[in-house]
Amino acid sequence: MEHGLPLLQALIEHFRKLPGVGEKTARRLAFAVLDLDPGEVREFAEALRRVREEIGRCKRCGNLAEREICSICSDPSRTGGVLCVVERPADLYVLERSGHYRGRYHVLHGVLSPLDGVGPDELNLDGLRERVREEGIQELIIATNPSVEGDTTTLYIARMFRDSGVRVTRPARGIPLGSSLEFVDRGTISTALDGREDVD
Amino acid sequence: MEHGLPLLQALIEHFRKLPGVGEKTARRLAFAVLDLDPGEVREFAEALRRVREEIGRCKRCGNLAEREICSICSDPSRTGGVLCVVERPADLYVLERSGHYRGRYHVLHGVLSPLDGVGPDELNLDGLRERVREEGIQELIIATNPSVEGDTTTLYIARMFRDSGVRVTRPARGIPLGSSLEFVDRGTISTALDGREDVD
Repeated sequence: MEHGLPLLQALIEHFRKLPGVGEKTARRLAFAVLDLDPGEVREFAEALRRVREEIGRCKRCGNLAEREICSICSDPSRTGGVLCVVERPADLYVLERSGHYRGRYHVLHGVLSPLDGVGPDELNLDGLRERVREEGIQELIIATNPSVEGDTTTLYIARMFRDSGVRVTRPARGIPLGSSLEFVDRGTISTALDGREDVD
Repeated sequence: MEHGLPLLQALIEHFRKLPGVGEKTARRLAFAVLDLDPGEVREFAEALRRVREEIGRCKRCGNLAEREICSICSDPSRTGGVLCVVERPADLYVLERSGHYRGRYHVLHGVLSPLDGVGPDELNLDGLRERVREEGIQELIIATNPSVEGDTTTLYIARMFRDSGVRVTRPARGIPLGSSLEFVDRGTISTALDGREDVD
């Protein structure tokens, strides 16, 4: 407990609830707030409150949205016929930053994980089935994380659409660009060798 | 810019203004806020605002205080006659956590750094001179950081009180406890060898 400063202590506790923030980091952040401009801190506090209260889920794809439908779903320049399926909104923004994909998304809000009690009903799968039918989707790119749960979810979705004529794909796996072989884990090396390509 | 989410983007920018928080961390923290309980986020925002607005400096020692005089200065169980001089309030709390020092403090709010335009007038030194006289201080423990600026400041204070009969000391320097010699830097090793002690 910071000596006789319950206000500061309370702020430290709040910072600690954020992921990856331990005792020392929380203290450093709280002390830093004391050095910020007071107007800036008021705006910070306001941003914090508004983000939590005004950002909801897009009714169509499950992405974060400040209105009923998110900006990607309501963007007419997006390619139709293809959906990229992700676990969480944060994953969607990682894909968006590459600038490579121009279709729309569908956010599952989780992955199948029987041990954590997450079954198909807990995911945004009914919405996916409906969109595939209504939007005339021809391809689903399943970009879940490369984990056991992510892969299980990908397979589950592939089976859901097995006889529907929809192509279900996932991003290629292998050695990441710019990495050094020395630091790539064994599983990735094995996957990359199995999936080796002809050089022409 | 997070797609069509100016509120979220604003929060990311606020997090980025904190020290040690880069683009990726700021984004991770902002997304995490979306998963917190709404009531908790309101309290977080309130704590942020109040910390900046209600915490000021102790009129006596310069420490952080929610009132005019900080809890350490107003604690009658503190040992009199000795002051520990630190650069910043955060340093004071590091010393407090050791539980070893039971005297009071004096916070300089900086160190002498001519290149950054920080001279004696920018530090809380007049207050120190006054307290030494009024509180009958016999020892000043100067616990500035072990940097060129910190050492210069320590020397400056030692000279301020040279003919006053006040003892000016600083914490010992050497190999930190629990460390491994392999990872201790050369400067520390040299300092520790120069200051070697007899084993008896």
